[in-house]
Amino acid sequence: MISAAVVGASGYAGCELLRLLATHPGVKVVGTYDIRNAGQPVSSVHPNLRGIVDLIITEPDYGKMAKAVDVVFTATPHGVAMKFVPRLLEGGAKVVDLSADYRFDDPKVFELYYIKHESPNLKAVYGLPELYRVEVSKARLVANPGCYPTAAILSLAPLLKDKLIDPERIIIDAKSGTSGVGAGLSEVTHHPTCGASMRAYAATTHRHAPEIAQELGKLAGRPVKLGFTPHLIPIVRGILSTAHVFLKKPMTKGALLGIYRDFYRNECFVRVLDDLPQVNFVVGSNYCDIGLEPDTKSNRLVVVSVIDNLIKGASGQAIQNMNLMLGLDEGKGLEASALRP
Amino acid sequence: MISAAVVGASGYAGCELLRLLATHPGVKVVGTYDIRNAGQPVSSVHPNLRGIVDLIITEPDYGKMAKAVDVVFTATPHGVAMKFVPRLLEGGAKVVDLSADYRFDDPKVFELYYIKHESPNLKAVYGLPELYRVEVSKARLVANPGCYPTAAILSLAPLLKDKLIDPERIIIDAKSGTSGVGAGLSEVTHHPTCGASMRAYAATTHRHAPEIAQELGKLAGRPVKLGFTPHLIPIVRGILSTAHVFLKKPMTKGALLGIYRDFYRNECFVRVLDDLPQVNFVVGSNYCDIGLEPDTKSNRLVVVSVIDNLIKGASGQAIQNMNLMLGLDEGKGLEASALRP
Amino acid sequence: MISAAVVGASGYAGCELLRLLATHPGVKVVGTYDIRNAGQPVSSVHPNLRGIVDLIITEPDYGKMAKAVDVVFTATPHGVAMKFVPRLLEGGAKVVDLSADYRFDDPKVFELYYIKHESPNLKAVYGLPELYRVEVSKARLVANPGCYPTAAILSLAPLLKDKLIDPERIIIDAKSGTSGVGAGLSEVTHHPTCGASMRAYAATTHRHAPEIAQELGKLAGRPVKLGFTPHLIPIVRGILSTAHVFLKKPMTKGALLGIYRDFYRNECFVRVLDDLPQVNFVVGSNYCDIGLEPDTKSNRLVVVSVIDNLIKGASGQAIQNMNLMLGLDEGKGLEASALRP
Amino acid sequence: MISAAVVGASGYAGCELLRLLATHPGVKVVGTYDIRNAGQPVSSVHPNLRGIVDLIITEPDYGKMAKAVDVVFTATPHGVAMKFVPRLLEGGAKVVDLSADYRFDDPKVFELYYIKHESPNLKAVYGLPELYRVEVSKARLVANPGCYPTAAILSLAPLLKDKLIDPERIIIDAKSGTSGVGAGLSEVTHHPTCGASMRAYAATTHRHAPEIAQELGKLAGRPVKLGFTPHLIPIVRGILSTAHVFLKKPMTKGALLGIYRDFYRNECFVRVLDDLPQVNFVVGSNYCDIGLEPDTKSNRLVVVSVIDNLIKGASGQAIQNMNLMLGLDEGKGLEASALRP
Repeated sequence: MISAAVVGASGYAGCELLRLLATHPGVKVVGTYDIRNAGQPVSSVHPNLRGIVDLIITEPDYGKMAKAVDVVFTATPHGVAMKFVPRLLEGGAKVVDLSADYRFDDPKVFELYYIKHESPNLKAVYGLPELYRVEVSKARLVANPGCYPTAAILSLAPLLKDKLIDPERIIIDAKSGTSGVGAGLSEVTHHPTCGASMRAYAATTHRHAPEIAQELGKLAGRPVKLGFTPHLIPIVRGILSTAHVFLKKPMTKGALLGIYRDFYRNECFVRVLDDLPQVNFVVGSNYCDIGLEPDTKSNRLVVVSVIDNLIKGASGQAIQNMNLMLGLDEGKGLEASALRP
Repeated sequence: MISAAVVGASGYAGCELLRLLATHPGVKVVGTYDIRNAGQPVSSVHPNLRGIVDLIITEPDYGKMAKAVDVVFTATPHGVAMKFVPRLLEGGAKVVDLSADYRFDDPKVFELYYIKHESPNLKAVYGLPELYRVEVSKARLVANPGCYPTAAILSLAPLLKDKLIDPERIIIDAKSGTSGVGAGLSEVTHHPTCGASMRAYAATTHRHAPEIAQELGKLAGRPVKLGFTPHLIPIVRGILSTAHVFLKKPMTKGALLGIYRDFYRNECFVRVLDDLPQVNFVVGSNYCDIGLEPDTKSNRLVVVSVIDNLIKGASGQAIQNMNLMLGLDEGKGLEASALRP
Repeated sequence: MISAAVVGASGYAGCELLRLLATHPGVKVVGTYDIRNAGQPVSSVHPNLRGIVDLIITEPDYGKMAKAVDVVFTATPHGVAMKFVPRLLEGGAKVVDLSADYRFDDPKVFELYYIKHESPNLKAVYGLPELYRVEVSKARLVANPGCYPTAAILSLAPLLKDKLIDPERIIIDAKSGTSGVGAGLSEVTHHPTCGASMRAYAATTHRHAPEIAQELGKLAGRPVKLGFTPHLIPIVRGILSTAHVFLKKPMTKGALLGIYRDFYRNECFVRVLDDLPQVNFVVGSNYCDIGLEPDTKSNRLVVVSVIDNLIKGASGQAIQNMNLMLGLDEGKGLEASALRP
Repeated sequence: MISAAVVGASGYAGCELLRLLATHPGVKVVGTYDIRNAGQPVSSVHPNLRGIVDLIITEPDYGKMAKAVDVVFTATPHGVAMKFVPRLLEGGAKVVDLSADYRFDDPKVFELYYIKHESPNLKAVYGLPELYRVEVSKARLVANPGCYPTAAILSLAPLLKDKLIDPERIIIDAKSGTSGVGAGLSEVTHHPTCGASMRAYAATTHRHAPEIAQELGKLAGRPVKLGFTPHLIPIVRGILSTAHVFLKKPMTKGALLGIYRDFYRNECFVRVLDDLPQVNFVVGSNYCDIGLEPDTKSNRLVVVSVIDNLIKGASGQAIQNMNLMLGLDEGKGLEASALRP
């Protein structure tokens, strides 16, 4: 039995980690840590876990933690994990970091969009198993991808890998539920003003844009020009990512679907659909569903992908990575299908 | 490995049965039946199950079915199961009927609220394990309770059993999400008119009222006078049931919680909370959460219970019943905790 | 042209007052006041009013205000208006107070549920025009009713006036949208946890209970026993109030509707429907729609009423009161019908 | 007093016409027509209008209608108005057609996306007053724009007019509430499956694409290449249209806002905001709010516009057109500001 710790247990990603690990047959969570709510039982912060997770949230002691557990999940705000992940690794633990701290190949890009990096020389594997499975299984530190990047990269990987689209003309228009904003109160998630509304935000400046561009660029073998605009939609969970791209030469929908199905043929968490996916096909599960529609009047192609932002977009993918890092079945603990309706 | 069949696979309860049984380690669904969508794969009707349930929906042959499987779940509209359940039992299968057909001790009450009964002499056990665990484990036919009755009965059982409240003055004001209406299109679930609205319906005539009254009466050892009014709320899943009752003598909240905790001390799916529960404490799980608040200025007591109408209120409870009938662990396959947020 | 001031311009009731008065042909808002957002234009706080209300929010000077305007609307938190309303009246202005400060005949009841009163001897007219039209038209200070009380009192007034129901057995189970919580951020209106949930709150202790009881008692000519339990529902606007009451003797739906229609025959904002009303019949309007359903098997009667909590439940009713106080047509400025869908 | 008739009174656009015209001081609706619901009062179909619109819906007699009224609104499904609009015009009535039948300069384009045209030689003015005010005021037949086109065209008109963007690279990713689907029941608006979901639809084939392209092309003085993808979002009302376009040369946000403000300086229903608009800034009103954000790292520009799809996107704009056609104040009857919250 593998032992695990969750740092950042008060947040939504922390809650999802605990919820999913509670039914994972090979892992036991032995410590839940957070500065907020220290001293309280998990279930007083997350009432869904009453009777299921009975641990007390405590202030972290990273030295002890690293010795006590096989793997640590760090679900902390950006800029926090980089302060203590080196100690965890030195102490012998493997780490899956759900924050942005180690997602960038070039720390300068991180610093441009976030803050000064405190452990810039520490290298992680970018934890998108569909692209980096082998590397993840050997890694001691995995940088778990952002929610928008997971949906966006998976939706375009087959096209860029095969150089089928113009890498200079990629538009991703994404829509997220409100859980992506997090557990902290905020004007943008105040129900009276958001519950029957929608908005674009950070329309040209979102921090996930350089993360998406980094990975699309590696797939394409050259830098890409990416426009990324996210929107906030009044549902709780789910991301729908709409990619508007341009084929270098006309292709039929059938041919395109064939390429996608071939690319993802061994993947347990990517489903290529005949039609466009809807968010509720995947909410509650670790799946990414993808569909596409080429414009028969032009070379434009629309690719739509959907994920549960807290599962495949965060904690489910973190567990998928952990399974790989620890030699378990990749899908272990992630068998739940989406709720319907 | 137990083999199971699901009749009524196109509906929401059927979908939930398939979703939950897909991860049940002791049961294999070998047949999915429905008149609607016959010939189609389950996953084309329920896209959340793509890659998970690959069976084809077929028109039922009850004779063959009864011989081929250990247990049949009948998730059909009211008045349908009674036509073929006798054949299933004769063929040797055990049956969990999710419809109302066998819920009433007195078929005349059924006929008053539904239609003429075609197998009125066939007796089932009312499948609320918290009240009838022993009977369920011996039963060959279990009548799975309605969604509102599950929430309502569990919220008042300890009080009526101990004769603590006036059985002539019970008001239950319940609120349900729209999935309770079912998969068929309907004016009341048309998003433009229901998505930002709410309504009471069948305010004094709902079919679940006599079902609740039957069970409360048995608990009280005498007939009760029950007022039951349901409401439709624009969320997808979840029931919140608010019982307004009157204590025979003043009691503190602490004393009342003690009685509830004692009554439910061995239950794995009932949680008695210090505060009032919210629907999202349980949506996605088989839990029923209960909280209460006595009025310090009068003898009124408010008891609030919440369930996921499709899990504890339908398919989860059906699996709980099946586990008991087949000698499996009662909670097997029902380990999922609620989604949060 | 009548001149008006709005104190508490940053809140939702303040916003609604400004929105509605912007198209009132007989009134001009000349001052918008608040401590929060002082110095900012109204439209930067309430973007819906951009180009419509161009006033700057300023810190209030009550002496000047009283001299400058005919009527002041005080849409401040409870316990605030009582500090300055005496000065406004002395200065010559008429006042419609949207807070609870002057709603209680007995200041001791106010103090039991709110805080110590600072002007307990100042008497206001309870501003429910359907009950106190003559008094309101002569008043200089009107206490605008609470949102739940407006819906609840209108739903039962005809029954209590005619002594048709048992005044000892009144249950009101009410459901409100989230705008009732106000513009301030709060855990209970955080979209991720409330957007797909519902909850009861203050199940036996809500401050609107004594307000409702006061008015029902006056209608009945004797004290009533009232149980009041509110719920929070994930829609933005609207209250649905379900009254469970007991007829002294059996009556048909037709007879009951006749009594209601007679009672409200001259009312421009109360509609008695043949069927039960839905919240979206009234959201966006000043209407209160009422429907009822007697239980043919017992003497229970269910009466359902719906209002827009910010219009008939707050700012619309305040303008209705103002129209009466100033001798204008009662419905002036309140002609908008509900949005559909 | 101008007299008007509404054909298609059972639908949502018909309802909005009646709701808005009910408070229009210069117009009286004298006839409401539909094949559905003929014989019923308007208020039994649209309960929000009870006590406000007391007309009976009748089957249309176009000859009589044309003689009896000054103006007819045709809010019928596509392909219906073209059957009788010629008769209405011959009879002397002016017509605002809310369907797509007369929106296309070239009937062949209409026929490509809809059906065979039955009066292809009849020419209408495209009723977007911000672009065709003079023409509308002289017109006898106005083709009211589609909802998506209204938002999309207004968001890009200043840029194309001044040739500031590449007309070959226009992507419009639009999001609509469910009322756009209409009053007819449909799988896509079934609350259980749409209420917590979202989807793209007709991703490259939507009928509004050629309508948008026609008008953008006229503004640009040359054909444009347009990619248009709509999405369905679980709110009732509102469209948010996100345009991804490419500036020919870098421009600051300030310069761009200046161009928009200059272009729309005399418009009463277009507001250019400093920041990006949210849908609830306009729902309930006839406004179109526009905001933009240029990408400082590339030449991409994001322009976001929001409208109420049933008001500025349908019935409000129809009344705005009627006002112009009949010489009334353009904004008469359309003074309502958006609801907030």
